[in-house]
Amino acid sequence: MGAIITLTSDFGLTDAYTAAMKGVILRINPDVYLIDISHTINAQDISSAAFILSTVYRYFPNNTIHLVVVDPGVGTERRAIALKTPDAYFVAPDNGVLSYILQDYECEKGRLSAGLEAVQLTNKKHWLIPVSNTFHGRDIFAPVAAHLSLGVPFAEFGDNIDIISVLPAQKPRIGSGIVTGNIIYIDHFGNLITNIGKDLITGRSTDMTVKIGNREIKGLSRNYSGGQELLALIGSSGRLEIALREGSASQYLGAHIGDEVSLYEALYNEGLKHIQGGNRQ
Amino acid sequence: MGAIITLTSDFGLTDAYTAAMKGVILRINPDVYLIDISHTINAQDISSAAFILSTVYRYFPNNTIHLVVVDPGVGTERRAIALKTPDAYFVAPDNGVLSYILQDYECEKGRLSAGLEAVQLTNKKHWLIPVSNTFHGRDIFAPVAAHLSLGVPFAEFGDNIDIISVLPAQKPRIGSGIVTGNIIYIDHFGNLITNIGKDLITGRSTDMTVKIGNREIKGLSRNYSGGQELLALIGSSGRLEIALREGSASQYLGAHIGDEVSLYEALYNEGLKHIQGGNRQ
Amino acid sequence: MGAIITLTSDFGLTDAYTAAMKGVILRINPDVYLIDISHTINAQDISSAAFILSTVYRYFPNNTIHLVVVDPGVGTERRAIALKTPDAYFVAPDNGVLSYILQDYECEKGRLSAGLEAVQLTNKKHWLIPVSNTFHGRDIFAPVAAHLSLGVPFAEFGDNIDIISVLPAQKPRIGSGIVTGNIIYIDHFGNLITNIGKDLITGRSTDMTVKIGNREIKGLSRNYSGGQELLALIGSSGRLEIALREGSASQYLGAHIGDEVSLYEALYNEGLKHIQGGNRQ
Repeated sequence: MGAIITLTSDFGLTDAYTAAMKGVILRINPDVYLIDISHTINAQDISSAAFILSTVYRYFPNNTIHLVVVDPGVGTERRAIALKTPDAYFVAPDNGVLSYILQDYECEKGRLSAGLEAVQLTNKKHWLIPVSNTFHGRDIFAPVAAHLSLGVPFAEFGDNIDIISVLPAQKPRIGSGIVTGNIIYIDHFGNLITNIGKDLITGRSTDMTVKIGNREIKGLSRNYSGGQELLALIGSSGRLEIALREGSASQYLGAHIGDEVSLYEALYNEGLKHIQGGNRQ
Repeated sequence: MGAIITLTSDFGLTDAYTAAMKGVILRINPDVYLIDISHTINAQDISSAAFILSTVYRYFPNNTIHLVVVDPGVGTERRAIALKTPDAYFVAPDNGVLSYILQDYECEKGRLSAGLEAVQLTNKKHWLIPVSNTFHGRDIFAPVAAHLSLGVPFAEFGDNIDIISVLPAQKPRIGSGIVTGNIIYIDHFGNLITNIGKDLITGRSTDMTVKIGNREIKGLSRNYSGGQELLALIGSSGRLEIALREGSASQYLGAHIGDEVSLYEALYNEGLKHIQGGNRQ
Repeated sequence: MGAIITLTSDFGLTDAYTAAMKGVILRINPDVYLIDISHTINAQDISSAAFILSTVYRYFPNNTIHLVVVDPGVGTERRAIALKTPDAYFVAPDNGVLSYILQDYECEKGRLSAGLEAVQLTNKKHWLIPVSNTFHGRDIFAPVAAHLSLGVPFAEFGDNIDIISVLPAQKPRIGSGIVTGNIIYIDHFGNLITNIGKDLITGRSTDMTVKIGNREIKGLSRNYSGGQELLALIGSSGRLEIALREGSASQYLGAHIGDEVSLYEALYNEGLKHIQGGNRQ
């Protein structure tokens, strides 16, 4: 089996936009293996696309090519780019959709760290000509990914760049005995996924308290069948999650992306102590 | 082309959970053929997953591996299992999702009939380590299916078991001239599919009467374009179905899974005769 | 890699109807490459299926086989057919779903133009027997596509035919300085796609005015990020489209398939001049 190209977009499932990209790719490389990641990302929701991509690229074979087309700026001056990491290739508009990937490689403010390479896609030789103004997924990104899968050298696709656009940083704030983060993604089950990674969570999980709005969750559960209705746990992406047993935490709490979630290292009985910081009882 | 692995889940289409499983599989066996059966089963709806799987596995090439992850009990004591039949392999949580498959092989109360083999998945050698508590699809079921597709002997995955969990039996009740069953699945077109199989339907189809709620349907139709608005027919899965011509029977009747459907071998004009049993007029 | 078969249907994503077709195909030709075009076409919406198919078939490798099952008349006297063009094969019910394909090859009223061939599927040797009355996708169309992908000669599938059913023509009306067409498709982003092709659009795009309902859009934009909220442009399928910047034109305008859209070659300030025809100011 040849190379793998994954596809992520906000094209939905009914229109033929995704199939058009696949057709274009197969015309160039009929031996490629095509895998859909998601095409039902909310229209133009760059942030969710960035998160979804970040949770999955590590599980694919090395040198898999990830094609991402959530592209509200198609036809404008936004750049089309490709990124090469030691693990994978990414072909995408330069609009922040690779933010979490760059975070994984410890890039600061989009500046490529050692071992990463990127190009702006400018070499029309690898495009589908004539290029439309509204569907670069089909006319630029797909043919570039296909040629890349055939072994065209990375540097041939355009000029080297060393900074890539990233979304406004959403890092958790760390205080004394308290970490405050935000919901960055809500999945299909209504689980609330935060930007608080497991590396920030130390101590005994039974001592933790998670706070969202005016609700407190005492202790971290091991799975979604825990003893409490509303529970907090380290989810499969390695981040703090809030879930409702056999239900949707998102609906139950009326929670949204961006909402604040705090993690305390011990139980508090009085609201006042929250203000005083992380004194253990 | 190598082995085929099909995937069935309640993961929905937006999140990357299904893609993560595919990545894991392709890392282990890059030559496998991946086919999606359904990922939009209602969250934790084991019964619908069981039905969907049962209607389709027979159409795949022999020894296809069917991976099913509708797994509300992930991370608890529920077993992870694999089942081998003369036709196919199944890798799934032991929660009833294989009930209709076992029915096809005439297993009584989940006890394996001759020719079937099953193991509890306990051999961590074939898992993705470390195993999360919340996503065994990615960490246990997918890698097991992938290794199975590479030819790892079935017995290597764990200890033999001879009983598998099944859903509470929903067999139709057979009386004199009457069969009473239930709706077990409602499809995308709103067709109501019952547990009354075509083997239970004898006699001339024009003599039949189907009753649901207070509606009577006289005669079985051959297809969805029959002469009546509301019609009954033997559907493509070989079961009695109720359909609405160019519409949704489910919406029209307000019908639900579990609702009772009766089949009489002749027309009745008076309610009283229903009680008296199946006397032909 | 072997032949490619694409699949288009109104089966939705939850039921296993599409997977059953894939299983049947893989039993016959395990080396075929299966690509989904769309399965979420509205139930029995032949017109949208026809449009979707027409926008995508050109992008696939030559001789790709396109399997289309939007088939409200399944089990009735409607014919099952296959069409061969210089570019591709199509296997479908004869209900109008190939209308736009035939338009591309300049067929008049469904009469095949030079270079096209079609057969009525009558040779049961290439079917899955017994054929159900309700699922010809699985029992006739899928096995025919699979055998075609194996190289079975086209003429073997049935008797030659020279006329295929087409949808009632929806061609734009051309006046002096004005073209009047209709919305023929609304995509997932809410973009309104008309039957006015770019070949009908001449002159400077800044001079154009597009009218829908009582709204006028002055000038054509190059992309979806144009200067105006509501904009008109030549979309990626080469047709006049109406779009809303970062929103859904369909929702914003309350527009429907069939609604009239007019294109004037110059700006008009007074309603009266519309009637007088295309005098430039």
